[in-house]
Amino acid sequence: MDGVTAPTAAGRPLSPHPDRLLPVDPVERAIARRLYDSVRALPLISPHGHVDPQLLAADEAFTDPASLLVTPDHYVTRLLHAHGWSLNDLGLPDADGAPVAKPREVWRAFCSGWRYFLGTASRQWIEAELHEVLGVRRQPSADNADELYDELVDRLATPAMRPRALFRSFGIDVLATTDDPADDLRHHQALASDPSWSGRVVPTFRPDRYVDATQARWTQSLDDLAQASGIDSTSYRGLVRALEARRDHFRAHGATATDHGAPDPEMAFLPEAEASRLFDAVRGGRATPQEARLLSRQLLGENARMSSEDGLVMALHSGSCRNHHAPTFARYGADTGHDIPMCTEFTRALRPMLERFGTHPRFQSVVFTLDETAFSRELAPLAGFYPSLHLGAPWWFLDAPRAMRRFRDAVTETAGFHRTAGFVDDTRGFCSIPARHDTARRVDAGHLASLVAEHVISEEDAADVLHDLNDALPRKAFRL
Amino acid sequence: MDGVTAPTAAGRPLSPHPDRLLPVDPVERAIARRLYDSVRALPLISPHGHVDPQLLAADEAFTDPASLLVTPDHYVTRLLHAHGWSLNDLGLPDADGAPVAKPREVWRAFCSGWRYFLGTASRQWIEAELHEVLGVRRQPSADNADELYDELVDRLATPAMRPRALFRSFGIDVLATTDDPADDLRHHQALASDPSWSGRVVPTFRPDRYVDATQARWTQSLDDLAQASGIDSTSYRGLVRALEARRDHFRAHGATATDHGAPDPEMAFLPEAEASRLFDAVRGGRATPQEARLLSRQLLGENARMSSEDGLVMALHSGSCRNHHAPTFARYGADTGHDIPMCTEFTRALRPMLERFGTHPRFQSVVFTLDETAFSRELAPLAGFYPSLHLGAPWWFLDAPRAMRRFRDAVTETAGFHRTAGFVDDTRGFCSIPARHDTARRVDAGHLASLVAEHVISEEDAADVLHDLNDALPRKAFRL
Amino acid sequence: MDGVTAPTAAGRPLSPHPDRLLPVDPVERAIARRLYDSVRALPLISPHGHVDPQLLAADEAFTDPASLLVTPDHYVTRLLHAHGWSLNDLGLPDADGAPVAKPREVWRAFCSGWRYFLGTASRQWIEAELHEVLGVRRQPSADNADELYDELVDRLATPAMRPRALFRSFGIDVLATTDDPADDLRHHQALASDPSWSGRVVPTFRPDRYVDATQARWTQSLDDLAQASGIDSTSYRGLVRALEARRDHFRAHGATATDHGAPDPEMAFLPEAEASRLFDAVRGGRATPQEARLLSRQLLGENARMSSEDGLVMALHSGSCRNHHAPTFARYGADTGHDIPMCTEFTRALRPMLERFGTHPRFQSVVFTLDETAFSRELAPLAGFYPSLHLGAPWWFLDAPRAMRRFRDAVTETAGFHRTAGFVDDTRGFCSIPARHDTARRVDAGHLASLVAEHVISEEDAADVLHDLNDALPRKAFRL
Repeated sequence: MDGVTAPTAAGRPLSPHPDRLLPVDPVERAIARRLYDSVRALPLISPHGHVDPQLLAADEAFTDPASLLVTPDHYVTRLLHAHGWSLNDLGLPDADGAPVAKPREVWRAFCSGWRYFLGTASRQWIEAELHEVLGVRRQPSADNADELYDELVDRLATPAMRPRALFRSFGIDVLATTDDPADDLRHHQALASDPSWSGRVVPTFRPDRYVDATQARWTQSLDDLAQASGIDSTSYRGLVRALEARRDHFRAHGATATDHGAPDPEMAFLPEAEASRLFDAVRGGRATPQEARLLSRQLLGENARMSSEDGLVMALHSGSCRNHHAPTFARYGADTGHDIPMCTEFTRALRPMLERFGTHPRFQSVVFTLDETAFSRELAPLAGFYPSLHLGAPWWFLDAPRAMRRFRDAVTETAGFHRTAGFVDDTRGFCSIPARHDTARRVDAGHLASLVAEHVISEEDAADVLHDLNDALPRKAFRL
Repeated sequence: MDGVTAPTAAGRPLSPHPDRLLPVDPVERAIARRLYDSVRALPLISPHGHVDPQLLAADEAFTDPASLLVTPDHYVTRLLHAHGWSLNDLGLPDADGAPVAKPREVWRAFCSGWRYFLGTASRQWIEAELHEVLGVRRQPSADNADELYDELVDRLATPAMRPRALFRSFGIDVLATTDDPADDLRHHQALASDPSWSGRVVPTFRPDRYVDATQARWTQSLDDLAQASGIDSTSYRGLVRALEARRDHFRAHGATATDHGAPDPEMAFLPEAEASRLFDAVRGGRATPQEARLLSRQLLGENARMSSEDGLVMALHSGSCRNHHAPTFARYGADTGHDIPMCTEFTRALRPMLERFGTHPRFQSVVFTLDETAFSRELAPLAGFYPSLHLGAPWWFLDAPRAMRRFRDAVTETAGFHRTAGFVDDTRGFCSIPARHDTARRVDAGHLASLVAEHVISEEDAADVLHDLNDALPRKAFRL
Repeated sequence: MDGVTAPTAAGRPLSPHPDRLLPVDPVERAIARRLYDSVRALPLISPHGHVDPQLLAADEAFTDPASLLVTPDHYVTRLLHAHGWSLNDLGLPDADGAPVAKPREVWRAFCSGWRYFLGTASRQWIEAELHEVLGVRRQPSADNADELYDELVDRLATPAMRPRALFRSFGIDVLATTDDPADDLRHHQALASDPSWSGRVVPTFRPDRYVDATQARWTQSLDDLAQASGIDSTSYRGLVRALEARRDHFRAHGATATDHGAPDPEMAFLPEAEASRLFDAVRGGRATPQEARLLSRQLLGENARMSSEDGLVMALHSGSCRNHHAPTFARYGADTGHDIPMCTEFTRALRPMLERFGTHPRFQSVVFTLDETAFSRELAPLAGFYPSLHLGAPWWFLDAPRAMRRFRDAVTETAGFHRTAGFVDDTRGFCSIPARHDTARRVDAGHLASLVAEHVISEEDAADVLHDLNDALPRKAFRL
């Protein structure tokens, strides 16, 4: 449609190479392959992600490939959007009630746009999912879209494709979900009390909408929390107590961590009287935007303080400018592909937290960034001193093979391997979990192989490290 | 003169290797060579550069190598300046009327300093120009400067070295120049109406001096524009109308794009009454620097709005601190080698533009940066969502082999290849055009070869992409 | 203790490979080895570091490996601290008088934590020190700690392990120390007047505590300076004169450079009356923090002015947030592992200095950064125009093999090699000097080899460059 080269009709072969993503140099590749083979079948530890626990509780079959792979994955929809498809074309309903494409039409759009994914991380994962999980052997294209759709609808209806069966075949040891503090965690409860289910699925406490006092819906959120906790949240002290109560509820259901998506990682630690005054002003609609922001930082700081007491690991995901395109947000809502990273400062921003809890024996944090310049400049030096601060895996746009490699190159010389927290898949796409972990294992094996081939470390040490990255480190960082 | 190692007298051999800039690994190199060979002879599309259209209209012979390769190229003069030569030594006249070196003396300085260019992008291009275009077979050195000078003076006098002959032998399909809105485009007109000339040379509308209201000469510029357009530019509305009229004039002469060199890419969209008030205050000398800056942003925003209406592609080149060294600027003027990049923020800065025109069906922009940290953090995510925003090629200091490779590594995993705009040479040096495009083709072939060798994409797909990068993508991004 | 994989009992072999840190590709490695061999035995030029001159003046034997390698090296203690050891455990006394581990206990802690250094730059240096200088052949481990300790205590008592003997065997041509302006330089004097000593050890003038007027101890520092200089420093003019006098004293003892560790590199150049007013306000405790900061910038600017007159090279080390963790600073003092880098801006910050002295014939500066994003964006372009500005080697956390390689990749295409200042070891660990220079030589050889293998430069030119990097360039940049 735009003059770019189009592939031939039948679709090119889809056959992920066994050595994909391993180094090209034959010496490095041989080492990398041995290292990778030593961890490729290890159980998967997924300490942070966005799989809906209902998926496993209900265990219902997926209906079609568009609903599985396209519509819910904003990595996929955003790039198709950039190439001219509307979000309606991709199955997203809008506030205006415009016609929404049916799954088969969405699938056709995806197959037509598949060539635009060349070189992207999404293409890697989807190729692996299509090939390893769904048995597809040809690249999607405009010409084979319908045939592929039918084939996949049939395949998804088989028992082996049910969520619980996949959980087992993926070799997942533990899966952390991300949950609203007001959630009653009934799906986690259902799984825990189901004698036919032995998998470990734990919730994660994500209080953003109660902490971010700059949002229009914040006051409404406080009411939701009050209802869930049974604690009046119309005062600062009340809100703090309600959050503490919900953290206890989450811990009772197996949670080991909290998760926070503030725009920047700065926290405040004001005296309670001052915090109460701020709270009242914001809640009463009398506060400036600066005051609302300060209250948000104060509430984030309260969560750090709570973590130092209850031991929930504090995961910080900051640096995203959410809902960048207001018209799209108004029409399609959040998580529709236009959250855009920003420069993020950590050295000064994390100082208030670290001065209080940086050497606290119970406090533990995992820090993520979308700004890779912070890896060598700020995060590796911080993780290389503070015992409580673990360096999170490359996140979101950086969760891609070459970015992952840049992460290791940037941080290892300062912080080593053992101050990093291992891989997190952070995915909404359940079927992409094994592909993402496999990518990380390949990239880490390649990085370690390069150090071995340069005679910086021994292969024996490299194998130990790679095992730790996939087992001891995520367990330790997230207290799993 | 400063104790560094000097080469031997006669000059070392100058013989660019056929495989230069291709990957070292033999597997990768073989793939890269095949990919490169598939595009090496494609016509050149040059959608942004600074060749003077008079050069082709007049078609006069170049006189000597110093006037061709040294004096007008601030990449070259800046590094010689850093090594102790004054700009007078390099042929630049100053405001004081100090003696200026003659071309032969300039050439001697250049040859003496040639060794300081080792490893620079400039050396790559000049080596290729000397070898491919000018037939030189020895590296310049202090000892062979005079002999080389005489040889090149003779060669430049031959008919094959005339601008139009070179245009043809370079295989240029289309060349965009960069022009002042007050320009009558007579040289473009002359070329278009010359029956003996069939090349395509199009103007580009660059309104910086009318848009940047912080410049001392801004009021004078408004007068120039009024004269060129016949529209009174002493009011905000008048200026806007004059700009619109000149855009129409440019479009009538083949322009497909505008180009903007604001210090940062932020735009304002004020109500007209407020904009008019600002305009009057700045023009009347009653405005603060902040107000002048706001007016500049408003005028940049007006250009975005105009693009959404007339369809001229908006190329944004921001992030340079122009004329960093005030004494040199006072003495030698602009473009003398001390424009220095700055940190540049895009996510928040481009939001006003993108909220208005990001999904507009007619609006199209190409965004460039001198701050490579923005590639993975901001520009690839933006280009990966907004259909109107194309990611420009690595620019200026980043237009160099390893920086170009870092660009592809940084953006491809997020935005793929098809949201990038292809290569732009951005050169004042006419004879460097083929060398620059050739460098980009080699680097892209090498990058693609590494993906093929890592089994990330197939060689067939890589060949398609490389063709698109050199044909469909620049045509689409710049509407050529 | 934390579930990570532990090595076997006896310690793995310690045998740094002759080709370590050279490229993996066989073609590149062969070139790199030839290049490296051509400079590996060159004398060491160390223009910036923190060796105590008393070490060489007194020439006393080192007592034990913990006091030599662990306790004084904050690169080492910080990472052990991050893995749970207290600074007391590592031999650092605190303000509370808590029990401090004895050297043997410190050594055990170090050996137990040795595996956490895998992949770090520190591990590279320490491996080389242990192997090349101290004759160790097994990796340290919890199990061999005591045996290794005893072995090293014996070895350090031998005459060949005395500082002066090591200075000679390391092949040090010139060593610059870093000294307080109030220092009488008696150790430098003692060395210079010792007929049995022929090494060159020069002081460097580091006036931070007199220049940084934001520090609590600043007024006290002024008194120290007055005492050392015999010049009343209770006025701005007095302080300036005292600094000038001490610079003269340093020059008389061989100094060629000053060194400055301001948080950012910005300078002010106020009229003297305004500077005097500021000085009086800060000294009288009547100034705002902003005023104290402005005075600090003014005093840094005065040092630039002095350099333009006395010719001492001005080395700028900015961008560190010193003593990040206040509780650790209060308890253990400065230089205890929690100085954390910050974003650092140079283009605008250095403009006042460069507008005044950027093309001054006598002024010379060497600029370092902890923010590697500035290399391609700001520092290479600045060094590529201003003859007075040399680009310093990758510093501190960036003084590591892959960061050094990124430095060359980032700056060479814009500034070439000859605007960089050569390697500086910047070390407090005397025995790490040869290992650090050796690392730089290997990495530079590898970088140059990659350019040769890509046919960008010839091997002959590469060899010239590598020699210059290790001889002419540091001598020129630091006027040694």
